[in-house]
Amino acid sequence: MQVWKDYQEQHKDRFLNELLDLLRIPSISAKAEHKDDMLHCAEEVKARLLEAGADLVTIYPTDGHPIVYGEKIVDPTKPTVLVYGHYDVQPADPLELWNSGPFDPVIVDGKIFARGSCDDKGQFYMHVKALETFTKTNTLQTNIKFIIEGEEEIGSPNLATFVTNNKALLKADVILISDTSMLSMENPSIDIGVRGLSYIEVEVTGANRDLHSGVYGGAVANPLTILSKMIASCHDENNHITIPGFYDDVVEATPEEREKMAQAPFDEAEYKEDLGIKEVWGEQGFTTNERTGTRPTIEVNGMWGGYTGEGAKTVLPSKAFAKISARLVPNQSSAVITKKLLDYFTSIAPKGVTVKAAEHHGGEPYMTPIDSVAYKAASKAVLATFGKEPIPVRGGGSIPICALFEKELGLKIVFLGFGLDSDNLHSPNEKYNVFNFYKGIETIPYFHQYFAEMNA
Amino acid sequence: MQVWKDYQEQHKDRFLNELLDLLRIPSISAKAEHKDDMLHCAEEVKARLLEAGADLVTIYPTDGHPIVYGEKIVDPTKPTVLVYGHYDVQPADPLELWNSGPFDPVIVDGKIFARGSCDDKGQFYMHVKALETFTKTNTLQTNIKFIIEGEEEIGSPNLATFVTNNKALLKADVILISDTSMLSMENPSIDIGVRGLSYIEVEVTGANRDLHSGVYGGAVANPLTILSKMIASCHDENNHITIPGFYDDVVEATPEEREKMAQAPFDEAEYKEDLGIKEVWGEQGFTTNERTGTRPTIEVNGMWGGYTGEGAKTVLPSKAFAKISARLVPNQSSAVITKKLLDYFTSIAPKGVTVKAAEHHGGEPYMTPIDSVAYKAASKAVLATFGKEPIPVRGGGSIPICALFEKELGLKIVFLGFGLDSDNLHSPNEKYNVFNFYKGIETIPYFHQYFAEMNA
Repeated sequence: MQVWKDYQEQHKDRFLNELLDLLRIPSISAKAEHKDDMLHCAEEVKARLLEAGADLVTIYPTDGHPIVYGEKIVDPTKPTVLVYGHYDVQPADPLELWNSGPFDPVIVDGKIFARGSCDDKGQFYMHVKALETFTKTNTLQTNIKFIIEGEEEIGSPNLATFVTNNKALLKADVILISDTSMLSMENPSIDIGVRGLSYIEVEVTGANRDLHSGVYGGAVANPLTILSKMIASCHDENNHITIPGFYDDVVEATPEEREKMAQAPFDEAEYKEDLGIKEVWGEQGFTTNERTGTRPTIEVNGMWGGYTGEGAKTVLPSKAFAKISARLVPNQSSAVITKKLLDYFTSIAPKGVTVKAAEHHGGEPYMTPIDSVAYKAASKAVLATFGKEPIPVRGGGSIPICALFEKELGLKIVFLGFGLDSDNLHSPNEKYNVFNFYKGIETIPYFHQYFAEMNA
Repeated sequence: MQVWKDYQEQHKDRFLNELLDLLRIPSISAKAEHKDDMLHCAEEVKARLLEAGADLVTIYPTDGHPIVYGEKIVDPTKPTVLVYGHYDVQPADPLELWNSGPFDPVIVDGKIFARGSCDDKGQFYMHVKALETFTKTNTLQTNIKFIIEGEEEIGSPNLATFVTNNKALLKADVILISDTSMLSMENPSIDIGVRGLSYIEVEVTGANRDLHSGVYGGAVANPLTILSKMIASCHDENNHITIPGFYDDVVEATPEEREKMAQAPFDEAEYKEDLGIKEVWGEQGFTTNERTGTRPTIEVNGMWGGYTGEGAKTVLPSKAFAKISARLVPNQSSAVITKKLLDYFTSIAPKGVTVKAAEHHGGEPYMTPIDSVAYKAASKAVLATFGKEPIPVRGGGSIPICALFEKELGLKIVFLGFGLDSDNLHSPNEKYNVFNFYKGIETIPYFHQYFAEMNA
């Protein structure tokens, strides 16, 4: 619609500056020291929703960080779209690898560099600006509700209670989420699946104190060696996971689905060059896209123990630690896999050490049906603004609350993401292309328009 | 000799206070920020040697930390004892595990808690006080030379040059070192061997940046997983080292030697209780004392990579690091084993990662002949003050310069150590018993006396 385009063109600089302001708030949910930043960020989100034309915005406190709820109801008989996003971000460590401050956004070569630029401030904010576009041009044909939470990066521990207690408030026809990627701007795609997550932390203790590696070395179990052996034992020589029962509930992709995935544009040479690697790596018998999209995986996210400073120290450490997570596919259960991981790490340790294993947050895998009205509206919206029908693909990341939404609200989810895999999510120098930000703001109104028309 | 005893009894409080002052200097050789502390400590050692009656003390600068040389020549025709020690100490990390400041020495239950209390300030200082005892009582029957260096804990990189360039200065009949332990004060022992050392650092790099573990997990090699597999592969299921050629040059202990070792007092239940472990661990087919005394070993001294902070971060790290060292036995060569370690870690990595491996300092294993005059003098000295003949044992630690001394100066070494294995060397809460400190000061003069008599 020309009226949208005109309005957005006129206000594009302000849209971008508002996002940069939001990115300056270090809303790291995982770190207790950022509690005040989280509150500040929630207040900002509320103010922006009101400015954009929402007629009711409330900050709901939780046992953790608050949830911002907002709505614009134009007509109760029209379809309602519930937009979900999150204002919290990942920690910025390791800080020394950033080329500019993670919370001092800079635009270089058309890319916004900042923690949260893509995940998810830059993406949920497109929906706020889409709302503004509608309200300022008087063209809104759907009701829009927003849940912007502050705990996505730590597993949404308080969202379930909020959703369960507010089913009437959250009543809608579909959930719309922009927290995923496209293959590229030339090959637009829509994620139809996200993987689930299990995440554990393992602590291995040998002796009750750090020891001299000469005096005791060879006679007392070294927790780093033991933990290395435990981690090494999780995969066999084909990089197949060996934890008993790990694959039990996996629904394998069908030959048809695998064939369709193989047709999606993917340039392995470019992929390797971008990552600076000589070879890809993974479970034998599967392509790179299958490995990240359709197969469950186990990764070590962090590991530490002993002397890690300058020079050499001949210590036999008392403790070793690892953070280990699994990505899950339909129809694996996060609780079941978490238990298998915990059992595995606590059961295989030799008697010379003691092992404590505890769980962090998890989440269920989720798949979107591509024959739904909502998916079709999304596909048509992308076609309208990209001039190309989007490819349905399975994404590797996790959005733990999808299964919850489906269960509690009985709603399907559409992922309308505008990021790129190369946006350095969760990494130093996270970025989001200015082009993608504007393209999202341009595309989202079409989704609402088509969704309203298809439901009419 | 009563005259020694009387003198020492009269000055014992001062002896201890002087040691505490020395322990207050954070002379950590591995950390560049302590360069001034190292100089300060060298000056202190010089001052103490002069006060104790040395007639020449010189601080020799090196490319690293300075060497303190001192001497007291009573009669060029009498035998000369060269005392070696070191004024540098290990880093104090992890600081949070200390019950008191590592450089704020405190005495609790007759134990001096401080970094360096046993290794090696508390032990070399006994020789300074032995010299004082001699000079103040006019009883010295040997010439005494001192080399107190400042780089033992980083592998003595500059000592070889100094020794080679100063052979005439260092001319002596035996080298005496107090930097080892006894089985216990009830079971005095003398170390007749120290293990050698090879030490490497390994850096494994996967992708050129930290990645989102969902988007890339399962398709890109994880350096922590790869490094864990590499470390796990160093030992087989019997904890036998699998690195090709690792045992090639090992001189196995003879059945007679093993039998003698088995007779040394050792209480495994007490050992386990002290360390807080349920089981000992190590190479199958060997006892605990054999594992630390006669067998070469590989330990991971430190390992790190990925997210190590609070909470959960779903990162697939770009890099993983490990510090890995081997203890060597006669007739292994540090250079040969270091090369085998470097080759092993760089050769076994899969193509999805790149590996850099670099060496830290090493040192050769060393054995003292127990039929030498010097060993007999040491044994008799211990008998004189402990009332019990000391047991010859093989120690697990390393004193890298022993082989150098033997080669360059043609001298044998006697280890007259008064520490205990439980002294937390290289660990938090390092301690040295006040009793052992005084017992060393009491015993050392007897060594000089007997050594002079036996050489007369």
